[in-house]
Amino acid sequence: MIQTIVLNRKGEVSEFDLQNRGLAYGDGVFETILVHQGKLVWWDAHWQRMCLGAERLRLPEANENAIRQACEALAAKHQRAIVKIIYTRGSGGRGYGLPASVIPTLLLSLHPAPELSHQAIAVRWCETMLAIQPALAGIKHLNRLEQVLARAEWENATIDEGLMCDNEGRVVCATAANIFVRHKSQWLTPIIDRCGIAGVTRRWVLENLAGTRVQVLSKDDVMQAEAVFLCNAVRGIMPVLRLGERTWASHPDILGLQYALSKSQPAFALGDIRGT
Amino acid sequence: MIQTIVLNRKGEVSEFDLQNRGLAYGDGVFETILVHQGKLVWWDAHWQRMCLGAERLRLPEANENAIRQACEALAAKHQRAIVKIIYTRGSGGRGYGLPASVIPTLLLSLHPAPELSHQAIAVRWCETMLAIQPALAGIKHLNRLEQVLARAEWENATIDEGLMCDNEGRVVCATAANIFVRHKSQWLTPIIDRCGIAGVTRRWVLENLAGTRVQVLSKDDVMQAEAVFLCNAVRGIMPVLRLGERTWASHPDILGLQYALSKSQPAFALGDIRGT
Repeated sequence: MIQTIVLNRKGEVSEFDLQNRGLAYGDGVFETILVHQGKLVWWDAHWQRMCLGAERLRLPEANENAIRQACEALAAKHQRAIVKIIYTRGSGGRGYGLPASVIPTLLLSLHPAPELSHQAIAVRWCETMLAIQPALAGIKHLNRLEQVLARAEWENATIDEGLMCDNEGRVVCATAANIFVRHKSQWLTPIIDRCGIAGVTRRWVLENLAGTRVQVLSKDDVMQAEAVFLCNAVRGIMPVLRLGERTWASHPDILGLQYALSKSQPAFALGDIRGT
Repeated sequence: MIQTIVLNRKGEVSEFDLQNRGLAYGDGVFETILVHQGKLVWWDAHWQRMCLGAERLRLPEANENAIRQACEALAAKHQRAIVKIIYTRGSGGRGYGLPASVIPTLLLSLHPAPELSHQAIAVRWCETMLAIQPALAGIKHLNRLEQVLARAEWENATIDEGLMCDNEGRVVCATAANIFVRHKSQWLTPIIDRCGIAGVTRRWVLENLAGTRVQVLSKDDVMQAEAVFLCNAVRGIMPVLRLGERTWASHPDILGLQYALSKSQPAFALGDIRGT
């Protein structure tokens, strides 16, 4: 049994128990799904990741049809928006201990989406490190203090994103995006089996950028890269223009990838793709 | 400005915005305060830790008088209970980014407390490791999935607690308690500058168990210990009787400490302290 709570734009809700473990411990997972012309973008990939996360946290299986219908109802009539799903272990249990019978809680909400842009972005290095925790790596769980602290490191509005390393100095991701770098004519993206989130767009890129290798990445690999881009399921492919003193020109592979993405998912189509 | 939300035993509440960052990211801290004969036990220590946590997370300063009064009102007339405070960054901000103006949210709730016992307990080793994250170490923040996963490792009701190591194999704490071991006639407790919570009772013990050393602790140090106890602010001092095949007899230092605690805080007094 799932307690379905549907939120409107104002955050009005039918019912929410304040003893919910999502609030008490961050005991749950979430998804942030782009809406384009009333449709959910990459539903299957989001759903699969949410189920994987739920399984890793030993949350009960969720009912796809019911949740998809509720999300579609939220999305309908919206040209461009975000549907967010939060799926928690509900209430109960003594302290951290799991309740004998888990009744998960589902929160659905609709949010405005940032405007789409194919402009190259400026990024920085974050000092906040990602802790190495294989038990939670890859999944989009609700324990996000590291990202909050990392994003709080800068206020300069010209900086779009911050790159994060784990506490052994390996590059993992940006605060809210995955990273790809071209190094010695080879596209690379970090392994995320110790920390980081397995992004839905990262998955699409891995399937569409031929020969990309998943491997350990150092800061030097990034600084010496021939090209860098970030990606997430709301903003698509974001070419990196600047990182500290380092700048990059637009790269044909990235333009090609943006074009392929816009063909595959009209949500990411711009009238005019010419990079920076 | 603080939005004060007071919960009754049923979890009824005045108002809670479901976009709250406490739910979205675990963006906040909490305290679990024992109530004895209508009074809050160790208020000052709990308050100081909460403020330290808030500062580390860059949360606005909270108003002690107002919150203390609200907690005291909740506690009044309860012989034995727990008052829980959750203090979050409120709502707003774009994604992980902090809102321009933070209006923190305060949730206060009253819970039944487990019965006090001076019985020795059985513990186990948890497989779930604590990630090393100095930026979050020591404070009682809302990102508690590691503890949830660790506590979910066993269902055997005769096992009271699970001991946790960091991912370099150092012993840190139990899922909901700090640990002290007597090794070569010296009391030791782990350093918690990389992970773990600086417990209020740990602090009391450090002030009251003469010569206790804070240092790195290995599993072997625990297994070879002459005595072991756990402590937290609800259950007080818990002598460990058994850990796997290893058993310990009661130790006079632990009995002495339980006695001193019961004198210092009547909340921890039992009519008859004779250990196991």
